[in-house]
Amino acid sequence: MSYSPLLQQLIDALRCLPGVGAKSAQRMAFYLLERDRKGAVHMADKLQEAMQRIGHCAICRNFSEEKICALCANKKRDSSQLCVVETPADVVALEQSVGYRGLYFVLMGHLSPLDGIGPAELGLNILAERFKQEDIKEVILATGTTVEGEATAHYITEMARGNGVSVSRIAYGVPLGGELDLIDSGTLSHAMNERKSV
Amino acid sequence: MSYSPLLQQLIDALRCLPGVGAKSAQRMAFYLLERDRKGAVHMADKLQEAMQRIGHCAICRNFSEEKICALCANKKRDSSQLCVVETPADVVALEQSVGYRGLYFVLMGHLSPLDGIGPAELGLNILAERFKQEDIKEVILATGTTVEGEATAHYITEMARGNGVSVSRIAYGVPLGGELDLIDSGTLSHAMNERKSV
Repeated sequence: MSYSPLLQQLIDALRCLPGVGAKSAQRMAFYLLERDRKGAVHMADKLQEAMQRIGHCAICRNFSEEKICALCANKKRDSSQLCVVETPADVVALEQSVGYRGLYFVLMGHLSPLDGIGPAELGLNILAERFKQEDIKEVILATGTTVEGEATAHYITEMARGNGVSVSRIAYGVPLGGELDLIDSGTLSHAMNERKSV
Repeated sequence: MSYSPLLQQLIDALRCLPGVGAKSAQRMAFYLLERDRKGAVHMADKLQEAMQRIGHCAICRNFSEEKICALCANKKRDSSQLCVVETPADVVALEQSVGYRGLYFVLMGHLSPLDGIGPAELGLNILAERFKQEDIKEVILATGTTVEGEATAHYITEMARGNGVSVSRIAYGVPLGGELDLIDSGTLSHAMNERKSV
């Protein structure tokens, strides 16, 4: 090979990024060395700092470098509503959309016994504690529509009911502006079955 | 926004990678935090080390953390042949292909007066010095087929001839196994004009 040893190590290290293979890693390494060494050093600093300092919020389990994240610490949020999502990206998507003013709980995954992911790994003991301690009126389930997501939603539904908390699930169906002939058949048949009288 | 400040900084910093926008950067940050913190820290270390230590080989200008790169230091290479390429990636491609045993000269770009890239920026003074000092018999031009690449090739041709060094250019034409109807017309007409009698 004709890379210098350190360059080869850099290329190998860049491959830990998702979706980055040998060719992309090479392109990134050359780009950073040729055009943006300052940006690369800054990125390295931020990676170090983030990996060391970012943990999980003690209340909602979302990523946070503080013990309690800004969302949970915000007294203006409606603490009677709790939206349960699978990933931190879901929180971002919901916050970017509309006027949900309640709190969140981030599972960081879904129940998947074969992968060794049970209720404890999803922090459901923390969630159960919140059902008992806090005055939560409604749990809004926004977990995925995969089999695992449904199983997780079912599990949390049972937990919430056991604590006298009412449960709802976000609406699934045809996206607004979606063309019917481009929608997958699973979504379409769900939309048909869940039709509402007007 | 619902990212923690440090997470937002990490996402912004990741955008210095080529081809990585806001969404990809978010995906990378979440992936590294959830699945591969060790890999991320290793990557940060390598980025720091590479950006600080990797410079250019004093002889061929390729990336190297040593003053003289392994290729130039290799006494088994044929020092009478010198292949001129635009980027370090070109050296890798040529080395991975076949039995070229000569040396390289990496321009790190091509002549582009409008961008302020002249002969000095491409290290052509170093190349001129090599023409004078070393016993180079043939210069093989492998610069790109863009206007700038051609201009650069022309400039180096004049330089080499002035020093009594013979010049060749790698063959351009239809790739082996290429289907004629999928080849761009520029390549095809070039291949027609440069046909060889058999």
